Amino acid sequence: MNTKREMAELLAVKNRILIFPHVHMDGDALGTGAGLCCALRKLGKEAYILIEDEIGDNLQFIDDGFCVRIEDGETPDAVFEKYLGKKADLCIMVDCGSPDRFEKRKEVFFAGEVTGCIDHHGTSKPIADYNFIDAGAAACAEIMYDVLRELEDVTGADIIDKQIADALFSGIMTDTGCFVYSNTTIHTHEVAIELMKKGVDSSAISANIYESDSFAKIRLNGMAVDAMRVFADGQAAITIVTQDMLKECGAVMNDAEGVVDTLRSIKGVEIAVFLKELAENEIKVSMRAKSYANVAVIASEFGGGGHIRAAGCTLRMPAEEALKTMISVVTEALGTQTKPE
Amino acid sequence: MNTKREMAELLAVKNRILIFPHVHMDGDALGTGAGLCCALRKLGKEAYILIEDEIGDNLQFIDDGFCVRIEDGETPDAVFEKYLGKKADLCIMVDCGSPDRFEKRKEVFFAGEVTGCIDHHGTSKPIADYNFIDAGAAACAEIMYDVLRELEDVTGADIIDKQIADALFSGIMTDTGCFVYSNTTIHTHEVAIELMKKGVDSSAISANIYESDSFAKIRLNGMAVDAMRVFADGQAAITIVTQDMLKECGAVMNDAEGVVDTLRSIKGVEIAVFLKELAENEIKVSMRAKSYANVAVIASEFGGGGHIRAAGCTLRMPAEEALKTMISVVTEALGTQTKPE
Repeated sequence: MNTKREMAELLAVKNRILIFPHVHMDGDALGTGAGLCCALRKLGKEAYILIEDEIGDNLQFIDDGFCVRIEDGETPDAVFEKYLGKKADLCIMVDCGSPDRFEKRKEVFFAGEVTGCIDHHGTSKPIADYNFIDAGAAACAEIMYDVLRELEDVTGADIIDKQIADALFSGIMTDTGCFVYSNTTIHTHEVAIELMKKGVDSSAISANIYESDSFAKIRLNGMAVDAMRVFADGQAAITIVTQDMLKECGAVMNDAEGVVDTLRSIKGVEIAVFLKELAENEIKVSMRAKSYANVAVIASEFGGGGHIRAAGCTLRMPAEEALKTMISVVTEALGTQTKPE
Repeated sequence: MNTKREMAELLAVKNRILIFPHVHMDGDALGTGAGLCCALRKLGKEAYILIEDEIGDNLQFIDDGFCVRIEDGETPDAVFEKYLGKKADLCIMVDCGSPDRFEKRKEVFFAGEVTGCIDHHGTSKPIADYNFIDAGAAACAEIMYDVLRELEDVTGADIIDKQIADALFSGIMTDTGCFVYSNTTIHTHEVAIELMKKGVDSSAISANIYESDSFAKIRLNGMAVDAMRVFADGQAAITIVTQDMLKECGAVMNDAEGVVDTLRSIKGVEIAVFLKELAENEIKVSMRAKSYANVAVIASEFGGGGHIRAAGCTLRMPAEEALKTMISVVTEALGTQTKPE
């Protein structure tokens, strides 16, 4: 393990850098990567964030020409040539400490002259040449702020500006659930203050990340919740999104993400059941348990599976029959699975 | 206008204190009141929070025997006698600066020997004997923290403990939307740090406030969202909760908190308008702006007020007419208020 200072010293002397956030980027992965990429470019270096999948709609405001996507079958040399002219002298993972989280890019990563890792996941191993991993940091962006302050010190340059601050703040906001998750520390707020001094616009960032839902999505969620039924003495809630509902709202099935969490948030509800009518007689079932129930065993009765508290299966029957079936099996399961005192 | 120090000096010398948060208490009104009440009791004083309506389910964790409810027709003397033995030597409003926000209690308030007001609403007037109103504070709880620090200084006592910190943090969390609304300042984070040093459990507070919804509440919210209308070319969204909807869901009006934020979260929506039918021909209007619109000026047209991005008013007309009225004035406002480039 290295220190933040050593990571800054490494960044200071490298000139062709590729940054590797994890797949399915969240605000912290992209925010940290963008903050670093922007800082390196301000120092006159060639830097890109190499990604392998799409950037979520709600995160695109963070990318300012930083992200480039690897193409299928592209070799490390081809990637280096395309973006840097020659081999990267540093490939650095951020918010990511395991090659299985950047599967399509790992060959490129390990082909860099030197590799680095800045991360905050407790499960990450120091597999790069230079590593700073701090599981006590609420967000990787919180660590990156400290590293960039060190980089300012090492280079004598004034680096952290509003754009970098906005990117890092996005990461902190995402990974702390807006400063409420138990990972939030005094240092998290201290970093937030320093970023605010650089002009962070927290309400604009929040509007981008959390308030960019389509009218169709909000409407569909309202309709699905309005249609919910609570059963098993209030211990379970179920609802469905049908193809007709999608049509009525002008929504797509992806817009129904989040419905099952809303059902689970009801006081007293242990099992939330959410049905998606993918096609006639094809009903996808998602189940979530709150604290003690095992929904994986229920899913396995229908050839499905998953985790104890989050599982799913597919029923080949009409929607109304699927609702009745799930109400029946979940009621039975809640009768046999004992709630701990 | 007085200083925070003068408010602390006032609190230090008074011994029988009633605290008046606004009706329909939110986390800031109750959190500020509870923080103050707890502090006064720690100093050996008689103190109660006098309320006139129910405490929301999700806020009950903040009340620890602080709140007492005025009964219909109860005189000021009867209230004083019942809780304090004799007349209150201080009646103090918190998160509230207008008698119409504590209608049923205003006689009691003005019957106190001395009156005070600690508030952060820009539309509040200094109508008490001692007033500290700071519209620059994100939450009234943020001001109360500073006042209690002054009170520690004035009395030499160690006052702010985990219970007080949790109460004040609840207020800050509520009124800043978890540190993301544009009212959040560097000082907000500074106060958060000081409260965290006292042991605040932000994730438990968040679970209480945001994840303890009743079936009736979730159902009501779904119904309200399902009924929403989007207008002004998608720049505004409006919906209403009527008494009939409450009956159908078995919900109370407090359960509708959050609907306005859901409307505001729609992509492209700048102004969210939420109507509550409190009684026939009595429609309470809440408005929220996302990034640039001034809803306080709209509210003031109808004798209401509030903050630039969060304001409200009451319309004396049938529900359907109120909907039409608000659609009309908000459309007009969006036409004249220019969106920044």
